Amino acid sequence: MITTSHVTARYAETDQMQVIHHAVYPVWYEVARTEFIRQAGLPYSEMEKQGIMTPLTSLTCHYRFPCVYEDEITIQTQLSKLTPSRLSFHYTLYKNAEATPFHTGETHHGWVDAKTFVPINVKKRFPEIYEHMLKTIEPDTVTK
Amino acid sequence: MITTSHVTARYAETDQMQVIHHAVYPVWYEVARTEFIRQAGLPYSEMEKQGIMTPLTSLTCHYRFPCVYEDEITIQTQLSKLTPSRLSFHYTLYKNAEATPFHTGETHHGWVDAKTFVPINVKKRFPEIYEHMLKTIEPDTVTK
Amino acid sequence: MITTSHVTARYAETDQMQVIHHAVYPVWYEVARTEFIRQAGLPYSEMEKQGIMTPLTSLTCHYRFPCVYEDEITIQTQLSKLTPSRLSFHYTLYKNAEATPFHTGETHHGWVDAKTFVPINVKKRFPEIYEHMLKTIEPDTVTK
Amino acid sequence: MITTSHVTARYAETDQMQVIHHAVYPVWYEVARTEFIRQAGLPYSEMEKQGIMTPLTSLTCHYRFPCVYEDEITIQTQLSKLTPSRLSFHYTLYKNAEATPFHTGETHHGWVDAKTFVPINVKKRFPEIYEHMLKTIEPDTVTK
Repeated sequence: MITTSHVTARYAETDQMQVIHHAVYPVWYEVARTEFIRQAGLPYSEMEKQGIMTPLTSLTCHYRFPCVYEDEITIQTQLSKLTPSRLSFHYTLYKNAEATPFHTGETHHGWVDAKTFVPINVKKRFPEIYEHMLKTIEPDTVTK
Repeated sequence: MITTSHVTARYAETDQMQVIHHAVYPVWYEVARTEFIRQAGLPYSEMEKQGIMTPLTSLTCHYRFPCVYEDEITIQTQLSKLTPSRLSFHYTLYKNAEATPFHTGETHHGWVDAKTFVPINVKKRFPEIYEHMLKTIEPDTVTK
Repeated sequence: MITTSHVTARYAETDQMQVIHHAVYPVWYEVARTEFIRQAGLPYSEMEKQGIMTPLTSLTCHYRFPCVYEDEITIQTQLSKLTPSRLSFHYTLYKNAEATPFHTGETHHGWVDAKTFVPINVKKRFPEIYEHMLKTIEPDTVTK
Repeated sequence: MITTSHVTARYAETDQMQVIHHAVYPVWYEVARTEFIRQAGLPYSEMEKQGIMTPLTSLTCHYRFPCVYEDEITIQTQLSKLTPSRLSFHYTLYKNAEATPFHTGETHHGWVDAKTFVPINVKKRFPEIYEHMLKTIEPDTVTK
C-alpha cells in the first residue's frame, strides 16, 4: 500500500531564507503517516487508546530542493519495514505536480507500551494489528 | 512580583517577512509564565502532577514593532489578575536593551482539574497554592 | 464573502495537556486567511511580490473548548474591517461537524510596504486591490 | 572547538505522548549551530548579509531516550566536516546533568549564494571565512 497525502505549505512554516524551514518536514511526514495508518484501518489516536505508541528511534531527511509558501505538496508514504519490535516509513515528496520528488525522508519507530514506554512485541501482544500492518507492505520495494 | 525572562530569537521562528512570526509570541509568553511560576515556588510541571492545569481561555497580543533572528528578548511578567476560578498574566517584551517595549501581551486562564478539565475553585481545593499566588500580585499595578 | 477552510489537527500540534496547543490557532487563522485572499482573487504570495505586506498589529483568541489530535476543523473567515491603512479578519472555528463554534479569533493588520515596512495608503497606491477587498466585506455583519 | 549550548524544554514543544515532540530537535540543533558560528566569530545573521547561506542537504536524528517539559538540555556541537562546498555539524544532547547523552544528531549543509541558492566554492569566494571555520575543527574526532 502506498498512500497519497496533500499539504499546502503554510506561511508560518517559512523562514527568512524565503523557503519552508527544514524542521517542518518531520511534521509533514507525521501528517502522512497518520493518513497511512488511518487508511490501513487503524487510526493512530485509536491505537494510543489501546495502549500502543510508536515513538521515533531515528529520522532521516534528504533536502534535494526547497519548497515555498503556498506550494501544493504531495506525499507518498509506505511502510518500509515491519518487525515485531520495530517499523519504518518512507516518504517521497513532490510539489505542484512535478514528476521528480524534491524531498525524501524516512522515520524509524519502536512499538512501545503507551503507559510505560517499555518496548513491546506487537506480534504477540496485538497480533491482529501486526497482521493488519503486514498486509500493507509493498512486496517488492521494501524489506520485511 | 515581576519576573524577568530571556529568550534569543531562533532562526526557525523567523518567516519569509524576515521577522519573527507572530504565532511565536504566545510560546515566549509561556516560557516566561513557566519561569514566573517557578520563581513563585510552584513549578508548573509540579502543579500538573498535583492535578491542576491552567488552560488559556483567551489571549491578546499587541505587535508594536517586529523583532528579528538573534535578537535578545527580555520578557517582564506579572500576574495581572487572580480569583478562585481564574488568573491572568501580563507580558512586556523588550529587545536588545531598548528602553521601550516593542510588544505586549496578556493571557487569561481558568483553574481546571487536570484529569477532567472541569473548572475548580482553587482557593477551596488548593488554598496554599492560592495564597502563594496571591502574594505575587503587584499591589498597585494590577486588579485582584 | 465568508470562506470555509479545513484543517486536520496534527499530532505535532498537540501538547502534554492532550489537546491542541493554544499557539497553533494563529497558524490556522493564517491558513484560513491565505485561502480567503486566494478566493478573493489575490494570492498573498502575489501581493508580496507586488510590494505589499499585511503584518499583524494585534491578535485575539477566544478558547471556548479545546480540540484534539485528528479533529477535523472548519474555519469560517471574513474580512471584518477595511480602511486604506488597516484591515481585520474574523475567524469562527467548528470541529467535527458540531453546530456551535468551539473557538473564535480576530487578527488586525496594517498595510505596509514590503521593502521598508512603512505603512502605506493602499487605497491610493493599489486602488484596484482596495476595491477588490472592499467587495468581499459582508454588508451587515461587519464594520467598514 | 566544541561549543556548549543550553535550552530548557518548552511546554509548546511537548506533545500528547507527554514528551518533547521529535520535530523539535532540529530546531534545537539550529540554536546550537547559531551559537557555534557566533563563538567562531561569524554571526550567522552577518554571514547571510554577506551573501552566504548554508541550507541543509540532509539531517539525521537519533532518539535514544525522550526528554520532558522543563528538562534542562545541554547541547555539545562540533563542525564534523568542512570542504569548499559542504559542511556538517554533529550534536550531542544531555539532559539535567546526566553523564550519558540521550540524543544525537547530524546536519549536512551546502554553501550557497544567498540570492540565487546556487552552490558556491566558499574557499575561493570567502577564503577568510573558510580558513576561520577550518580552525574550529577538532583535529582527531572528525573528518576534514
